[in-house]
Amino acid sequence: MKTRIAIVGWGNLGKGVAANLKSFPDMELAVIFTRRPSAVKTDLASVVSVDDMKDYAGKVDVAVLCGGSATDLPTQGPRTVEYFDTVDSFDTHADIPKYFAAMDEAGKRTGHLGCISVGWDPGLFSITRAYSEAVLPHGDTYTFWGKGVSQGHSDAIRRVKGVKRGVQYTVPIESALESVRCGNAPKLTTREKHKRECFVVAESGADKAAVTRDITTMKNYFADYDTTVHFINEEEFERDHGKMPHGGFVLRSGKTGNGDGNVIEYSLKLESNPLFTSSVLLCYARATALMKKQGRVGAMTVLDVPPAYLSALSHGELIKTLL
Amino acid sequence: MKTRIAIVGWGNLGKGVAANLKSFPDMELAVIFTRRPSAVKTDLASVVSVDDMKDYAGKVDVAVLCGGSATDLPTQGPRTVEYFDTVDSFDTHADIPKYFAAMDEAGKRTGHLGCISVGWDPGLFSITRAYSEAVLPHGDTYTFWGKGVSQGHSDAIRRVKGVKRGVQYTVPIESALESVRCGNAPKLTTREKHKRECFVVAESGADKAAVTRDITTMKNYFADYDTTVHFINEEEFERDHGKMPHGGFVLRSGKTGNGDGNVIEYSLKLESNPLFTSSVLLCYARATALMKKQGRVGAMTVLDVPPAYLSALSHGELIKTLL
Repeated sequence: MKTRIAIVGWGNLGKGVAANLKSFPDMELAVIFTRRPSAVKTDLASVVSVDDMKDYAGKVDVAVLCGGSATDLPTQGPRTVEYFDTVDSFDTHADIPKYFAAMDEAGKRTGHLGCISVGWDPGLFSITRAYSEAVLPHGDTYTFWGKGVSQGHSDAIRRVKGVKRGVQYTVPIESALESVRCGNAPKLTTREKHKRECFVVAESGADKAAVTRDITTMKNYFADYDTTVHFINEEEFERDHGKMPHGGFVLRSGKTGNGDGNVIEYSLKLESNPLFTSSVLLCYARATALMKKQGRVGAMTVLDVPPAYLSALSHGELIKTLL
Repeated sequence: MKTRIAIVGWGNLGKGVAANLKSFPDMELAVIFTRRPSAVKTDLASVVSVDDMKDYAGKVDVAVLCGGSATDLPTQGPRTVEYFDTVDSFDTHADIPKYFAAMDEAGKRTGHLGCISVGWDPGLFSITRAYSEAVLPHGDTYTFWGKGVSQGHSDAIRRVKGVKRGVQYTVPIESALESVRCGNAPKLTTREKHKRECFVVAESGADKAAVTRDITTMKNYFADYDTTVHFINEEEFERDHGKMPHGGFVLRSGKTGNGDGNVIEYSLKLESNPLFTSSVLLCYARATALMKKQGRVGAMTVLDVPPAYLSALSHGELIKTLL
């Protein structure tokens, strides 16, 4: 029997889950939950209000939570795991322990399993950090993000007076990456690791110098970085900046017991951040369904899941083809 | 209580395990097993004949098998797992299913757990392939090795007439790597992926042209590659080629459900192959001891072990620091 998937939230991530499902033949879309069913136009599955989740108990195996970490997931997560097993991409790093505890309590109380903070960071990058720090206990770990679109920083520049449209790319600084790769274990400041590139369509008659100044001096977002603001026209914006690429690098530089040096590097180059993230979510939906069958309840993270469980291949096939 | 480790075999790998143990404070060396105890000079632990393993039942938690895959492990593995839980670096890819079955039978019969084929390939590279192929089910996987010393190829050139000393480096071809990185999904022949560089000290009076010809045309080893032979003197050999560096790259290039492209890349640069491999072995010794306590017996692989189990950190610390 196929694993029955519910999508909770019909934004970029929810649509990504739906688009990726055809690559997961052991799963099927059972229902889409959303706050405003009337606003969702799709014939992929029934579209149902999040308030009616309880009607689907027993009809859904794993709910993929596609809300945002700031306002949606802290309530959506614990509420949904009362009815179904869940996966989500909760990514407010500092709040993960608190969110884990809330999901663990709700899951254990109702007999469900929630896999939290799935995606690439947190997610595949966390896994890489875990393996790398275990095998090289003495060393330094570096994470670089980009080149890619940061939603938070793009939102920030769109709030600046005179900005009609705007997008912000986080760009790792190649010389810093190269220094880590060479095993130099450099101490890097915020400014030395990343730069920020903004592409802005100005309002007609806007003071471009003021826009640039307001962006580059913005505290918490841009003041600590070398930031470049490019003014482009609306046509260029549409043509060149419609995608949400992202990616990044995790590096571990460390010494083995005899003092020899080693560098582990992991990187992602993603043409579409939400599509990739939703594919990772579906892999962990597969693992969650399996681990639930084995009797696990409460909350878990990507660090608790054996790699074999993400695959559709049998144990014998995995050994034969991947080992 | 510390996990009590036995080292089986006192070659490069066994010495590497001993050198790395100081970075694993939750473990201690209990005993070294070897075929010829009189040949081992160390005061790190008692040195005992492999024939006396049974005397150590109950005094060792995990035996780290440091023999070779060709002749040692096929018998050493199943014999040792009758007394202790084990980890090994069995790396004859084609024979892994058969070795798994032998270890699984012996482990289940005697109530022990053997984690097989641990290291970096098979090992960390297998893990990367598993994660990458799961999250990008449609795509191509590439593995490149090097730059590094291949023991098998070095042995082969040392058997050539006129060669006094020799070492062979496997070198990935940068343009092929770059093409994969760009998402081109190229079809690559053996010759297009790697080249081979040999450093040879010739016997006095040897015919160097004949040595070069005999090496570069050697079937199975060199004939399918672009191979360069460099003649150097003994002093240069000692100075520049005493280490066993290695490493390599795993790349997965694939599309998500909407057709967008993605590239995942993992790479290792290791100054000493045996030291790094032995550090990975100790991480899996830690995981094996833990999973045995949870009741698992028989054989398992790196794909069956959750990343969290490799770490000395608690679950709470992992969530806080790595996720």
